[in-house]
Amino acid sequence: MLQDCIKAAANSKSQCLNFKDEYMLTKSTIKLVQSLQDKKHRKEQSLFVAEGEKIVSEVLASKIKVKTLFATSLWLQNNSINVHKAIECIVVDEKQMKQLSAQSSPPQVLAVCMIEQVELPLTIKGITLLLDTIQDPGNMGTIMRIADWYGITRIICSESCADVYNPKVIQASMGSFTRVAVCYARISDFIKLHATIPVYGAMLQGKSIYDVSFKPDCMLLIGNEGHGISNELLPLITYPICIPKRGGAESLNAAVAAAIICDTWARSVA
Amino acid sequence: MLQDCIKAAANSKSQCLNFKDEYMLTKSTIKLVQSLQDKKHRKEQSLFVAEGEKIVSEVLASKIKVKTLFATSLWLQNNSINVHKAIECIVVDEKQMKQLSAQSSPPQVLAVCMIEQVELPLTIKGITLLLDTIQDPGNMGTIMRIADWYGITRIICSESCADVYNPKVIQASMGSFTRVAVCYARISDFIKLHATIPVYGAMLQGKSIYDVSFKPDCMLLIGNEGHGISNELLPLITYPICIPKRGGAESLNAAVAAAIICDTWARSVA
Repeated sequence: MLQDCIKAAANSKSQCLNFKDEYMLTKSTIKLVQSLQDKKHRKEQSLFVAEGEKIVSEVLASKIKVKTLFATSLWLQNNSINVHKAIECIVVDEKQMKQLSAQSSPPQVLAVCMIEQVELPLTIKGITLLLDTIQDPGNMGTIMRIADWYGITRIICSESCADVYNPKVIQASMGSFTRVAVCYARISDFIKLHATIPVYGAMLQGKSIYDVSFKPDCMLLIGNEGHGISNELLPLITYPICIPKRGGAESLNAAVAAAIICDTWARSVA
Repeated sequence: MLQDCIKAAANSKSQCLNFKDEYMLTKSTIKLVQSLQDKKHRKEQSLFVAEGEKIVSEVLASKIKVKTLFATSLWLQNNSINVHKAIECIVVDEKQMKQLSAQSSPPQVLAVCMIEQVELPLTIKGITLLLDTIQDPGNMGTIMRIADWYGITRIICSESCADVYNPKVIQASMGSFTRVAVCYARISDFIKLHATIPVYGAMLQGKSIYDVSFKPDCMLLIGNEGHGISNELLPLITYPICIPKRGGAESLNAAVAAAIICDTWARSVA
């Protein structure tokens, strides 16, 4: 098995890759990977987990540093590109992958990646998303995917938002976390720092987005799933906006609302 | 406790409500409610479960028939409106609710509701959503909520879609399942039956939605999360459409795409 992998690595013209066979998977390594399900341990170790073929291939194609790649020999035989970017690669069997993975169907590949500090942007170009206490990891990941679709490369989150390195966020973002930088900050401070840039706030009582002419450079504030935008941020909104409703639903999901507004912004500045 | 509930029921001017105290909660009842997590049992019993205050209050305000309402005395004291619509109400404590509920934090109220057959619509008015193998229950529920926001009262699903009575669909729809009827059918047959109505198909290679003038009465076909629209349905699309992309994401989530297109339809026919 190790030979197959060395062959695969040779195919990718990598020479410095540190391959280890499955007997090298120690209990403490398994424990470390499992511990990264928790934010506390991710923070302590500055590491997070990305799982599955699509997501790991996006990680390997990005600037994210991979500390350890855990892969089955089957995956390695078919995916030699960029494998050498990982500092080390441990070949595991499916039973071992099951121990490492948090998913119900364990993937063929799992990467332990390094968390890098993201600096707050100094200037605002295009639309910048401000997320106020988006707590559902699925919503958070979906919003990152939406941002990525519209070419938005930065999201500012309140500290009360879900952790971007939560495995469910990583999964829902479908690889978009490799292109969208997420900074955690006090949103009120961030808005005040960019006082000349208008802030659109998604609210049930706002001006219809159909009648708004969006500014090319702006911020879009999206509130919590249940409670909307925090009281302390309401006075900082330049333009309260809403998505006109025709039916009976009380509200739209936060990610869905973000998508409709981003699309409206994109078409108005196109 | 029972007295409190009878008082609550009296407040709601109901006289025929069949109240039962918590000792009436038998093991076989618990087993029945738990079994409704599975589609097979839901089909056999023609019953489904709706949980939580918001969702149950929407159920009680709707035409959906409630066979049994399981509620804590606390909930009953504060929510007497429409409680009499349930055929029976069993007062339970929190420990019992935990046994009945599929959620990690058990709610104060849970309704076992009757499934009614939904007939296929004979005519098409407004936009009708056609879902082709939407398998993720969260997406399915979110699409129902989007439909409800835009006043769309009917969704046609292929048999391969997630079951509308799956607890995760019910949860994600946030009560919109009480206003949006979902019919399961062969989508190709349905389209052929309404051959004069245009079908918009959401695809990566289609005409930009920014350049489409939507017809007021139409069908919108949304494909599977991973594989898009089935090959057999492609020739039935009148207008292939796409959401213009500016960034790096490969695709948008199916529910998000549905939302953006529904919003574009709504603003163009407003």
